[in-house]
Amino acid sequence: MPQLAYVNGRILPLSAASLHIEDRGTQFGDAVYEVCAVMNGRILDWQPHVVRLRRNLAELGISLGIADGPLGLQARRLIAANGHSECIIYIQVSRGTAKRDHAFPNAAPANLVMTVRRFDFAQRLRQLNSGVGVITRPDNRWGRVDIKTTGLLANVLAKQAAREAGAFEAWMVDGDTVREGSSTNAWIITNGRIITHPTGPHILPGIARDSLIRLALGAQMVVEERPFTLAEALAADEAFLTSTTAPILPIVTIDGARVGSGKPGPVTARLAELTWNEVARQTGWRG
Amino acid sequence: MPQLAYVNGRILPLSAASLHIEDRGTQFGDAVYEVCAVMNGRILDWQPHVVRLRRNLAELGISLGIADGPLGLQARRLIAANGHSECIIYIQVSRGTAKRDHAFPNAAPANLVMTVRRFDFAQRLRQLNSGVGVITRPDNRWGRVDIKTTGLLANVLAKQAAREAGAFEAWMVDGDTVREGSSTNAWIITNGRIITHPTGPHILPGIARDSLIRLALGAQMVVEERPFTLAEALAADEAFLTSTTAPILPIVTIDGARVGSGKPGPVTARLAELTWNEVARQTGWRG
Repeated sequence: MPQLAYVNGRILPLSAASLHIEDRGTQFGDAVYEVCAVMNGRILDWQPHVVRLRRNLAELGISLGIADGPLGLQARRLIAANGHSECIIYIQVSRGTAKRDHAFPNAAPANLVMTVRRFDFAQRLRQLNSGVGVITRPDNRWGRVDIKTTGLLANVLAKQAAREAGAFEAWMVDGDTVREGSSTNAWIITNGRIITHPTGPHILPGIARDSLIRLALGAQMVVEERPFTLAEALAADEAFLTSTTAPILPIVTIDGARVGSGKPGPVTARLAELTWNEVARQTGWRG
Repeated sequence: MPQLAYVNGRILPLSAASLHIEDRGTQFGDAVYEVCAVMNGRILDWQPHVVRLRRNLAELGISLGIADGPLGLQARRLIAANGHSECIIYIQVSRGTAKRDHAFPNAAPANLVMTVRRFDFAQRLRQLNSGVGVITRPDNRWGRVDIKTTGLLANVLAKQAAREAGAFEAWMVDGDTVREGSSTNAWIITNGRIITHPTGPHILPGIARDSLIRLALGAQMVVEERPFTLAEALAADEAFLTSTTAPILPIVTIDGARVGSGKPGPVTARLAELTWNEVARQTGWRG
């Protein structure tokens, strides 16, 4: 079966899916996106993703001419057409196609694109046992990384540096403060307290982040949303990351230095259990 | 005659010119670009634009599979095919098309796109008499704006704010320091001294900027490349901006406050004369 994509109302072969070269996303990074996990054919946390998408569109004054209900319908239609039960769906909305000019065009309808790619979530379960390494990079991103835009070059360069260093992720560090990873939120655990950077202009408000806070609080665990330093992270008992494609992964090294024992720790293990139980509750998927 | 564009070796109608939705420029802002002025059918400052493009590609590790000679040939071919003698040519190079993943793909050939749009340079001559207004905005762009990438959303939002305020441009101000405009370099003149921000990570090294410095020095004028504050700009005798599409324009108001007399000044007029004489020397175009 050929892979299929969605472009402005049409489902077509991915290989033939294109946008005009004067798409504002392409020429200006004037676009926002979401990535959702699909397990057992069901979209995880669809509602929060749509809420975040709408909020980002509103921040940029982009008007998407499709309501939430039909959007979800088209997303599910594309997933079904691709026939994958475990996959990710990527949803991108740009300000539209217009003659190149920095200022907003008049009356260009938004371009809505969706792609679906098979994804091996079971690998994430296996990685719970080994954990992953992160490196650190100066955070040189723009001042509104809370908006999930396609202007990701700083993230790309950080992720590439991580890959070249044999690490899973790069933490973006601003002065002494650890903001988040290039595509994941960053967490440490000290004396049983679960610490992550507060929302605001310096981090992306991750859906997995939000979900984890809710689950941890529901299990009577202590969560602190506050900035933490790299020194704190290096001295922490445990560390982990969260994202849509890595709902939770233990971090066992930072710039090559061991975190805690250098092995995934018990608090992270407990949070992983809560996280994957929630996935199973929503989607029925159990790895 | 339909408008024509260039995509990866082919010249085709602009309306049919597209990139795959998994172009890295589209999904990550992983692309650089140049805009060149064409007057009298000739490209202004082609060589410096190509040098800058190559430098930016090298900064990002993007390999463009076409040498300078053939690139220039294709650019001139597209300009000729469009039949405009006064126009701008937009040249964009992305890291290529690949399954979405932040880190660099293996062996994806770069995507090279060029568009040509008619441009009214004579308007810029008329604007020398009236001057333009700028507003100021906090500079919230990323830390490497010296690389001319398509990640321009901060610039877009600033330009839109300028347009909504009835201004021509928005100056990006970092603390007290005026960096540059959203798509132009920023200059002030105090006691006959011509002052502009030095090159480095905080400004784009404009080709028009470089050209103006050379012309001013050649005319025995004093040029200072140093940061200047918004207060200095408000107290300056004159101010102006430069870019490819606005080789030089006097600035007569900043956030609504008059600069100097509130009218284009004599030093800017002299620099405009030098600038347009250089255009005429290179292209034969005299308005």
